[in-house]
Amino acid sequence: MTMTAITYEHIKTCKQTGARLGKVHTPHGSFDTPAFMPVGTLATVKTMSPEELKQMGANMILSNTYHLWLRPGHDIVKEAGGLHKFMNWDGAILTDSGGFQVFSLSDLRKIEEEGVHFRNHLNGEKLFLSPEKAMEIQNALGSDIMMAFDECPPYPAEYEYMKKSVERTSRWAERCLEAHGRKEDQGLFGIVQGGEYEELRKLSASDLTSLDFPGYAIGGLSVGEPKDVMNRVLEFTTPLLPADKPRYLMGVGSPDSLIDGAIRGVDMFDCVLPTRIARNGTCMTSEGRLVVRNAKYARDFTPLDPNCDCHVCKNYTRAYIRHLVKANETFGFRLTTYHNLYFLLKLMEQVREAIMQDRLGDFREEFFEQYGFNKPNAKNF
Amino acid sequence: MTMTAITYEHIKTCKQTGARLGKVHTPHGSFDTPAFMPVGTLATVKTMSPEELKQMGANMILSNTYHLWLRPGHDIVKEAGGLHKFMNWDGAILTDSGGFQVFSLSDLRKIEEEGVHFRNHLNGEKLFLSPEKAMEIQNALGSDIMMAFDECPPYPAEYEYMKKSVERTSRWAERCLEAHGRKEDQGLFGIVQGGEYEELRKLSASDLTSLDFPGYAIGGLSVGEPKDVMNRVLEFTTPLLPADKPRYLMGVGSPDSLIDGAIRGVDMFDCVLPTRIARNGTCMTSEGRLVVRNAKYARDFTPLDPNCDCHVCKNYTRAYIRHLVKANETFGFRLTTYHNLYFLLKLMEQVREAIMQDRLGDFREEFFEQYGFNKPNAKNF
Ligand SMILES: [Zn+2]
Ligand SMILES: [Zn+2]
Repeated sequence: MTMTAITYEHIKTCKQTGARLGKVHTPHGSFDTPAFMPVGTLATVKTMSPEELKQMGANMILSNTYHLWLRPGHDIVKEAGGLHKFMNWDGAILTDSGGFQVFSLSDLRKIEEEGVHFRNHLNGEKLFLSPEKAMEIQNALGSDIMMAFDECPPYPAEYEYMKKSVERTSRWAERCLEAHGRKEDQGLFGIVQGGEYEELRKLSASDLTSLDFPGYAIGGLSVGEPKDVMNRVLEFTTPLLPADKPRYLMGVGSPDSLIDGAIRGVDMFDCVLPTRIARNGTCMTSEGRLVVRNAKYARDFTPLDPNCDCHVCKNYTRAYIRHLVKANETFGFRLTTYHNLYFLLKLMEQVREAIMQDRLGDFREEFFEQYGFNKPNAKNF
Repeated sequence: MTMTAITYEHIKTCKQTGARLGKVHTPHGSFDTPAFMPVGTLATVKTMSPEELKQMGANMILSNTYHLWLRPGHDIVKEAGGLHKFMNWDGAILTDSGGFQVFSLSDLRKIEEEGVHFRNHLNGEKLFLSPEKAMEIQNALGSDIMMAFDECPPYPAEYEYMKKSVERTSRWAERCLEAHGRKEDQGLFGIVQGGEYEELRKLSASDLTSLDFPGYAIGGLSVGEPKDVMNRVLEFTTPLLPADKPRYLMGVGSPDSLIDGAIRGVDMFDCVLPTRIARNGTCMTSEGRLVVRNAKYARDFTPLDPNCDCHVCKNYTRAYIRHLVKANETFGFRLTTYHNLYFLLKLMEQVREAIMQDRLGDFREEFFEQYGFNKPNAKNF
């Protein structure tokens, strides 16, 4: 058994849904699961300060290996004393492997057994990312949770292509474990791939769990497939993962999918959705999506969300926030970002509370009804 | 004698320089003078929150009548309960008259005795601003200190043009006083004009002081004239103003000019300089200007200013801030803005301390030497 920096403490399973209540322990503190992790791509959760993240209840954030590799460079972050110190964040940090960005942002990529050749999306420079390089960078960043370097196949992909890809991801996972140089204070998660093919998810999970990672991500979802496909894949994938390790569903942040993921046994989620839509003046509220720049809010002196007790909703009105957003004022985007992140963090708190009370299924119905997800033409978030 | 919402309490005059130490009392609290006021053009000090402004020691900010008139509209701010409530700021607020923006931003303006016809800089719409309209807007905003609507002549301007302009500004000042509808809780300041002509400054000051405003601004400076011209004009203008009223020098925010203005008897200053340069990644430090985006700071893990005890300098490095600024990350501009505003607020605290100790002249020499203002090719800030 590998020494590990990350442990999962299971607290309770919801009798109504099977969702898991737990805690993940990291070298930079613990967090309750199911949990949503705000994304700080470039060593900053866009527009927010570390103090604000703490104030809203975040104690785990995500940052992107690929982006930090290019800017400012992992060597500079290492010289600063690691990512926590560089960005003044003493909570936990998860870094992805860079794989997803290489596969989605770069042109002219060439996948070989050794790794991936591609061009930097900023200046076209030729780069090479491999399992060993992904480990080197993440070891330099010093994140609490690192991700194995995997191939992210497009959706949809043919069975034969996907099978080869899964097999390569397993070989790469083994190389990642081998190259990982800080097992004592950084936990490396494996990533289960396989698209919508149950057989391939089984193959991937079997390969990876035999390597005994301290946690597992479910990759290749939230890449354009319908929600019912995602839910079905989760249903047959999470049971393949060990119950004593955390499970992380990558790239999911719409309120309905967070709840549906928790119900299917997922413990951790991340997504840029709440911060990205905030910068467009769009908010998530208990009563559904609110586009605060709309003219109808010009004289609306009520908070973004009448049921929210966040710092923004206690102190600012829709009219003021609309004015700021329309005038492209930074403070407006700070306010919408803060509220949106708080909304999802609070939602996860409610999910945990519902698991504790064995009523996550009931909570789902109530939440979906109020948010508007049950309407015929319901939007995605 | 007019009832007034604003009073000036004189505490001490510096024996070495004649600078004044005092306090201005407003309906939203008092502030120590000489004081620098951060500018919040559109009901927000760009990138900052009200809490941050409080934390850095600001208790008086400025906002712009012209800009708020256009966006969101003074009627909406009034309906919100006034500007303080609209923007969640319980400190004091000064609003300008809109005159400066009309004269500097708009094309096709036509000045008449009644007021100024011009086109909105955003969409070209025809608008009309007059003393009465400027009062109506500022009464709707509910600022603690309002400014009279004045003509802002270009620099340089001919004597005859300037004389006519000064006379009109005096007539407009009288109309402002007449139109001002909230004398009990908003103090209206007159603006002394006259360019670099001593005779005209005397004429303007004489006209305006006869109207007994609760405070006086010195307008028409910091409009492109050399610093020695500004200092000379201040030297013959401030003695024309009553000693028991605050004196406000508009549009001045470079460290040297703040000290030189205080030495010439000015109590209040405002300028967009610290916030504007911050958004370009430029900082003021005790050792002079620092352009944090420069490559030489890529691995500099020291604070922006080694002698600064602000929240930013205590927690963040040049290397991190450079990374954020280069990547155009909002949080980077929050950090540079915070530090720059703190730097000027702290400078004014040092100025007040030096007045208390009758050594503002000595302090000036020490500060100028360390900042680099005594160098042959010293920059403006
Ligand atoms: Zn809220
Ligand atoms: Zn500082």
